[in-house]
Amino acid sequence: ATPPKPARLGLCAACHGETGIAQIPGAPHLAGQKADYLREALRQYRDGRRKAPIMQAAIGPVSEADLDELARWYSQQAPAKAQP
Amino acid sequence: ATPPKPARLGLCAACHGETGIAQIPGAPHLAGQKADYLREALRQYRDGRRKAPIMQAAIGPVSEADLDELARWYSQQAPAKAQP
Repeated sequence: ATPPKPARLGLCAACHGETGIAQIPGAPHLAGQKADYLREALRQYRDGRRKAPIMQAAIGPVSEADLDELARWYSQQAPAKAQP
Repeated sequence: ATPPKPARLGLCAACHGETGIAQIPGAPHLAGQKADYLREALRQYRDGRRKAPIMQAAIGPVSEADLDELARWYSQQAPAKAQP
């Protein structure tokens, strides 16, 4: 079953889409990505260990609970079809 | 049509799988990811702008041609099913 929509999904969705299909050039698809990878990526952005200006501006002081909710949401979406 | 297997696929495949389905915890799936994102990620690892010890150790002096071949290969693989 799909988990409930994360409270903080809106800002993510602007670039990555509500269902993890990227909406803008440069943004990766997140749909079907491993939850543990997404969780760790979010932590790295939050803590400044992974640097990408857009992500660092967008993420703010995300809690472990919010971050977990987002990682689970996107990992459970149906991935994009293979593409050129 | 699937592109020819990249010359440098072997080392990538140890963690990300030949078809981009990750084989180890912590490694992301690459199958069906956007080619432009993969290309830029590889450049960032190569140039030290994105830091992840395993990737920095593995990548070496990858050429633009090799990097492009790998990005196209993985972007054209069928993505993983959504998962918990």
